[in-house]
Amino acid sequence: MIDKTALEPIPGFPEWTPQEQIAWQTMFDAIRRGFERFGFRPIETPAVERNSILTAKQSGDTTREIYQLGRLNAEGGQEDERDFSLHFDLTVPLARYVAQRAGEIAFPFRRYQMQPVWRGERPSAQQGRYRQFYQCDIDIIGDGALAPHYDAEIPAVIHRVFKDLAVGDFRIRINNRRIMSGFFAASGIAADEVAGLMRSIDKIEKQGVDQFRKEMAGRNASSEQTEQILEFFQFRGSLVETLAMLKATSDKLPNEELAQGVKDLTETVTLAQNFGLTDETFAIDLGIARGLTYYTGTVYETTLLDAPHLGSVCSGGRYDDLAGHFTNRKLPGVGISIGLTRLFTGLLQMGRIKAEADTVAPVLVARPLPEETNRYARLAQKLRDAGIATELYLEDKKLGKQFQYASRRGFHVAVIVHMDEIASGTVTLKNLKSATQETVPEAEFVAAVQRILAGA
Amino acid sequence: MIDKTALEPIPGFPEWTPQEQIAWQTMFDAIRRGFERFGFRPIETPAVERNSILTAKQSGDTTREIYQLGRLNAEGGQEDERDFSLHFDLTVPLARYVAQRAGEIAFPFRRYQMQPVWRGERPSAQQGRYRQFYQCDIDIIGDGALAPHYDAEIPAVIHRVFKDLAVGDFRIRINNRRIMSGFFAASGIAADEVAGLMRSIDKIEKQGVDQFRKEMAGRNASSEQTEQILEFFQFRGSLVETLAMLKATSDKLPNEELAQGVKDLTETVTLAQNFGLTDETFAIDLGIARGLTYYTGTVYETTLLDAPHLGSVCSGGRYDDLAGHFTNRKLPGVGISIGLTRLFTGLLQMGRIKAEADTVAPVLVARPLPEETNRYARLAQKLRDAGIATELYLEDKKLGKQFQYASRRGFHVAVIVHMDEIASGTVTLKNLKSATQETVPEAEFVAAVQRILAGA
Repeated sequence: MIDKTALEPIPGFPEWTPQEQIAWQTMFDAIRRGFERFGFRPIETPAVERNSILTAKQSGDTTREIYQLGRLNAEGGQEDERDFSLHFDLTVPLARYVAQRAGEIAFPFRRYQMQPVWRGERPSAQQGRYRQFYQCDIDIIGDGALAPHYDAEIPAVIHRVFKDLAVGDFRIRINNRRIMSGFFAASGIAADEVAGLMRSIDKIEKQGVDQFRKEMAGRNASSEQTEQILEFFQFRGSLVETLAMLKATSDKLPNEELAQGVKDLTETVTLAQNFGLTDETFAIDLGIARGLTYYTGTVYETTLLDAPHLGSVCSGGRYDDLAGHFTNRKLPGVGISIGLTRLFTGLLQMGRIKAEADTVAPVLVARPLPEETNRYARLAQKLRDAGIATELYLEDKKLGKQFQYASRRGFHVAVIVHMDEIASGTVTLKNLKSATQETVPEAEFVAAVQRILAGA
Repeated sequence: MIDKTALEPIPGFPEWTPQEQIAWQTMFDAIRRGFERFGFRPIETPAVERNSILTAKQSGDTTREIYQLGRLNAEGGQEDERDFSLHFDLTVPLARYVAQRAGEIAFPFRRYQMQPVWRGERPSAQQGRYRQFYQCDIDIIGDGALAPHYDAEIPAVIHRVFKDLAVGDFRIRINNRRIMSGFFAASGIAADEVAGLMRSIDKIEKQGVDQFRKEMAGRNASSEQTEQILEFFQFRGSLVETLAMLKATSDKLPNEELAQGVKDLTETVTLAQNFGLTDETFAIDLGIARGLTYYTGTVYETTLLDAPHLGSVCSGGRYDDLAGHFTNRKLPGVGISIGLTRLFTGLLQMGRIKAEADTVAPVLVARPLPEETNRYARLAQKLRDAGIATELYLEDKKLGKQFQYASRRGFHVAVIVHMDEIASGTVTLKNLKSATQETVPEAEFVAAVQRILAGA
């Protein structure tokens, strides 16, 4: 027998209880269904990539967080597998995939990808740091060019997915990077200060306005500049109001990039409204920057209104070139990513996910008379053949125990055929949600179960 | 730019084209749906386990096939991650999971698990050797005991799954290990010869009867013994005929284990018939042994009738103790595993999987008039809100190109609103499968699309 401590969970590698796994799967399926509803198609890449692929864009510091493959108990000599490591995100594998398969892919390429990734982080569930976690990504990639309209479809996908996830009120926030940089240029901020300033603005939400003013003073910005920047980036209004403010600002501060950004954002937001987005879940937030080098236009963040501590639970944006390290072909795109492991854990910790159901099948066929097992098998099979997920209780336990099992695990319907039912050719259906029961002719029992499950 | 060779596929780590991935996903979903139909519930374990868990049952030779985690570019010092390796199957993680969580699991525990596993094999796609491949497992695990009836449900799951996979005719073959060992004992085969003999019998199908006779002669078996063994194990008949033959043999050769095995198999097969199994897909095959130490009673194999070279594509059996290395709790169970990667690749190579569809959405909303993009967005959104997966074509291409795109990628319906339709408040629906089209009032177009998709 091995040491008991070997059965402890491995920090940073989350694993769910059977009940939690059902809740996880429900969320996973909702996301996938949402992605497919918009015509995104699945791809899956192997867990490993060549080190040269994974490190093409990485600096020395971050490559230390990459898990390399070795062989357990390998004696001497390098295995070729040492050239492979576990992927740390799904963007690099996507870039490699598209660069490698550009010839066999029909563009625009709308793909989703929902897989675990691995990082050698110092694990901390509180801070949402995991060594294995799921990313759920969508991207639309063009060959050479990609119409700007796609940027407007992405918030509609986020809207659909988060409505279906039923995790409470949420806000999709959109911005365009050009507005930010154009506004800075027009406000007399030097180009080499923009990066730092963007970082400061990105932190206003967390660190507050006063900290921002301090940082600006440290940068020798005039307080007029500081207040103009604050007024702009802290503006909160409806979609219509914000677009009007942007138009006014752009008219007031002549700058080509600002004007272009305002035009692009206005078109994107207008089209997004035609995709069904409204002020209820969709807002312009000029303070969103999202990294510095990758995104080039539209950027997105998504927050859960009663879980702001989770930060953005779905983010992304428009980029000019997906795979510049891997191919000469220019591959612009737009995409988002949901960090499902972090989102799921956060909701579990908040008690927002209950993880109460202990079965995926709504129906349990009980077995009050062990000698009638063949009959129960036929009943269960009839339900299964009708597409109803059904468990047949096959242990030798008393009927009371079987009911207990059924109600504790969250079955909806228990099917009971005891001596009376056999004598009269009927089936008793116990609705465990409403605590009611009915007895129907055997010929009608499948339809009756369907009716109960449909809530009719 | 990185070296082109870095974009080559990594041997042994299969990756599908976008079209193949859709076919893969269809199979994956069918298997999962089949498992859930029978009340199996999902669990997922992390990709890594502690080395002490993975090697508890392993001998030195096989541990060399385990991939251990290291850190890329790590300088000096052992990382704690060196204690972890990628799991090489889903059985060891299941054993660890159940041993660790026995207190929070309700038994009997019916779980499915569909994940990749990793092995340091010498890759060979021809022989179905992969370094990363999917296993799709189900198990029913009891706490201390598990009713024998569950053995009869497993073939019903296999039947459902392979019917739904639509991969042609298949045969589920069942046996009981006790019959084999009881028959040997009754035939005067010494106990220490049984293991070798079982292996020889397991190979009859591949190597032929003559090779078996040679091996038996090498074992100093009398030709009478050899022929009695061959007659028994080569018996082919219907379920009823085979059970009758077994009954007769058991009556003729008094042996307690043989009698028990025949009784168990008879009960299992009889109950399985009540789960809908017939001679069409279900057969007793006394030659199935399946390993030596793990399985203790019922064993299963599944073959595709026109792909015998793939061997058994779904195998498993009854075992006495899942997690003896990890817990004192006795955990008997019964389960099967589908090696999906090998099955999928085999079917691809045979041309049995066509991988023609290049979209998961059946509907494409075309965009003949770029200035009407907002209108098209609203139309697409109406379809999506009705649950119909829909792609909106947003590139600036001529309508002819858009139709080409729609038909090449396998869309079922193209939605067209050109000037005529706008003027008359209608929508034209092009059924690309039947090459017909109809124009309907806009208020009815969602229902019309639903009708076309339903094939009505």
